[in-house]
Amino acid sequence: MAKDKKTPRPKAQTPKGFRDYFGAEVTERSEMLRQIAGVYHAYGFDALESAAVETVEALGKFLPDVDRPNEGVFAWEDDDEGWLALRYDLTAPLARVYAQHRNDLPLPYRRYAMGPVWRNEKPGPGRFRQFYQCDADTVGAVSVAADAEICALLADCLEVVGIPRGDYVVRVNNRKVLNGVLEVMGLKDDEQRAAVLRTIDKFDKVGETGVRELLGKGRLDASGAFIEGVGLSDAQAGPVVAFLTSKGATSADTLANLRAAIGGSAIGAEGVAELEQIAALLDAQGYGPDRIEIDPSVVRGLGYYTGPVFEAELTFEILDDKGRKRQFGSVAGGGRYDDLVKRFTGQAVPATGVSIGVDRLLAALREKGRIGSESRGPVVVTVMDRDRMADYQTMVAELRSAGIRAEVYLGNPKNFGNQLKYADKRQSPVAVIEGADEKANGVVQIKDLILGAQIAENASLEEWKERPSQIEVPRADLVAQVRAMLDSQG
Amino acid sequence: MAKDKKTPRPKAQTPKGFRDYFGAEVTERSEMLRQIAGVYHAYGFDALESAAVETVEALGKFLPDVDRPNEGVFAWEDDDEGWLALRYDLTAPLARVYAQHRNDLPLPYRRYAMGPVWRNEKPGPGRFRQFYQCDADTVGAVSVAADAEICALLADCLEVVGIPRGDYVVRVNNRKVLNGVLEVMGLKDDEQRAAVLRTIDKFDKVGETGVRELLGKGRLDASGAFIEGVGLSDAQAGPVVAFLTSKGATSADTLANLRAAIGGSAIGAEGVAELEQIAALLDAQGYGPDRIEIDPSVVRGLGYYTGPVFEAELTFEILDDKGRKRQFGSVAGGGRYDDLVKRFTGQAVPATGVSIGVDRLLAALREKGRIGSESRGPVVVTVMDRDRMADYQTMVAELRSAGIRAEVYLGNPKNFGNQLKYADKRQSPVAVIEGADEKANGVVQIKDLILGAQIAENASLEEWKERPSQIEVPRADLVAQVRAMLDSQG
Repeated sequence: MAKDKKTPRPKAQTPKGFRDYFGAEVTERSEMLRQIAGVYHAYGFDALESAAVETVEALGKFLPDVDRPNEGVFAWEDDDEGWLALRYDLTAPLARVYAQHRNDLPLPYRRYAMGPVWRNEKPGPGRFRQFYQCDADTVGAVSVAADAEICALLADCLEVVGIPRGDYVVRVNNRKVLNGVLEVMGLKDDEQRAAVLRTIDKFDKVGETGVRELLGKGRLDASGAFIEGVGLSDAQAGPVVAFLTSKGATSADTLANLRAAIGGSAIGAEGVAELEQIAALLDAQGYGPDRIEIDPSVVRGLGYYTGPVFEAELTFEILDDKGRKRQFGSVAGGGRYDDLVKRFTGQAVPATGVSIGVDRLLAALREKGRIGSESRGPVVVTVMDRDRMADYQTMVAELRSAGIRAEVYLGNPKNFGNQLKYADKRQSPVAVIEGADEKANGVVQIKDLILGAQIAENASLEEWKERPSQIEVPRADLVAQVRAMLDSQG
Repeated sequence: MAKDKKTPRPKAQTPKGFRDYFGAEVTERSEMLRQIAGVYHAYGFDALESAAVETVEALGKFLPDVDRPNEGVFAWEDDDEGWLALRYDLTAPLARVYAQHRNDLPLPYRRYAMGPVWRNEKPGPGRFRQFYQCDADTVGAVSVAADAEICALLADCLEVVGIPRGDYVVRVNNRKVLNGVLEVMGLKDDEQRAAVLRTIDKFDKVGETGVRELLGKGRLDASGAFIEGVGLSDAQAGPVVAFLTSKGATSADTLANLRAAIGGSAIGAEGVAELEQIAALLDAQGYGPDRIEIDPSVVRGLGYYTGPVFEAELTFEILDDKGRKRQFGSVAGGGRYDDLVKRFTGQAVPATGVSIGVDRLLAALREKGRIGSESRGPVVVTVMDRDRMADYQTMVAELRSAGIRAEVYLGNPKNFGNQLKYADKRQSPVAVIEGADEKANGVVQIKDLILGAQIAENASLEEWKERPSQIEVPRADLVAQVRAMLDSQG
């Protein structure tokens, strides 16, 4: 005790913004990532796993999410290697890897990567400083066929993990079209351009009228506060509004509207032509607008992308914190970014890719009841006689050989109530009991813990008698009877 | 260019001691870990994934491998959280997790964990600063039934991933027996005890005579250098030698010899009794000495373990760097360590567990030809007419729907030779070609790239004619014919 006073005990706590994942939280994620990896692999993408640690120099100092507060990396100085840091995404390491190994890698190089990334930001509710990313990128392909492929890949991934067709849509836009619109508007001032882009991002929330107001003098928001406008004239704002409202009933309609919105801009025309190609490629493969559609309101990571951008949105409704219905929303996004390795080699290499939001997609699967409904623990073999541990371990070995998850109670067996409490905490469906009497008679007791819990809660005395939650069976029938009980629980 | 001179380009390089894993290196490891997780889960172990980052305080300053040079962690100071560090193993986080969540976790708590750990050490050949661990531990079980279970679990894991019975043995010892031997020897001096333990660890290499010399005056090693001895008399050294040579033909013989070696030591007797129980439990479940055996020469992590220790050794022979035969050696180890969470809570909680050396086991599977033999890439559909990309993407979609990994060439299609070079770099088994003529005739060319390579290397002109490596088939038969070609390649 005196010693304890001298050195205070360490706190048993994760640092803020970090957390532990238990049981199904881990296995459900692994399984989802395995399914996605299967699709990536089938499309010819190769796995890549780089280390968590990179030189700060190789990572570069620019994070992709420029509008996040307090952005940053976890970094430290190494005696020999200078400043090192934890990767903040999987794209910066891809750039380093491609530049380092480009002589050995195929060109184009399709790669996928999955793993944790770290952000040194203020943590908040649901915002962690370590989280998973799951990316697929194609390096070195100029053709928009690469972008179309990424969109199809994304749709396939969503269906494979359990999002049914109709519950998602991959929306495609092109930064070049947007640049064309800004060109037509004659906006040269960077700050004004940025303000326009931010306004476009609000279209989903405020609608056409709202956007007109925000591009002009300003707008009263729902809380009554006045939001300063960008200060454009109605005429200047015209192309933006035309662009945002250009979504038609078919891809062809949308493309025609976009062509009108970009007027005589060459870059805009290039963007529309690319979208047209993407739509045609996807259409030919049967990815119609029920799965992938052109949608001018998709903006995404403004400073980062240079061509097509995509976003996968889940369209089914959930209830928000306040009980209001809303669409589930975005679970993945990406696009073309054309200067991947230039920083390292001086040579421009185009790339396009997608990042699936692992936690968001898991949450969606939970909402859809695709995962999380099954939280059954192992069968627990209780210990009635500690000298016969070998008998009990033989039972669990038999159950496991038959594919049934099973364990023997390893705590102090003295108090049987503790063993049943343990089984309860483990969410065990079945407990097996073999005391001295059972042993002598060549039988075991099998207790249905799920039925037992139901009866304890609801049943009348009649039902209690009618549906015994514990049965005695010959020892030789252990496996068959446990299986039957598990099956009866559904 | 002027700009490039001002800011020199970053080096595209991993920091020393870190590396990238490509393709099968990633997928083979994932698959092996998935198989092991399946066994852990069947035994009732629950997954746990803690963050890579812990407070230095929670990790503690003592690393498990006390005899590693330049041991250390990667640590940095956080503005709000104080000193943070990357975890150096999966056991220290388990201690923190158990202390933090003990009210919600079952007791005993069986957990498994898999993931990277980081060591701030001098890297060397085959020694990396980030590597995988794969652990299973039982927290809160006093009974050696928990230790026996870990041994059985380990044997099952090895067989599941593809190490056949007979090619491995799990060796079990008990630190208490060793402590009994040291007690009988009357060694009180810590330094002398440590020297004796180090000597025991050399038994495999130097044999009985060598150990006698090293415990006594010293020994000339193979290079002619003189190794200073511990300085014990022959009589003092007796119990150690008896202990080391106590392995008999059966477990019973070994146990009898151990009982003799520990003389009247109470702690020694306790250790022998525990080994006896473990042997009996495993025997009852059919884990005989062909899979798990008592072996007094197993020492492992001297300062760390307090009871039973285990080591999985692969017994098949490989050739070392110099072409000499040697056994593959250890791939996993563990044991009982009884003060897991005391540092946090003041309460002693016993634990026992095993850690599988992921890279070692993968290397073993490669040696056995269980993995790595198959490195076939995807089918490559070439692009003969860039305006018909939709046709080519439709072909790969058809192939993928039939479960065949396939991709379209996304580089510049102008030079067909480059497309075949690309297919070669991708290790593609089959290339598909559809030019304007084929399109007009409703056919495609299917090229067997594996046969083609063989013929190019070995075939006579006769064979060349007899076994065409390229066939023309109706477009409608594309999938069936590609499958047939893949099947013929075995």
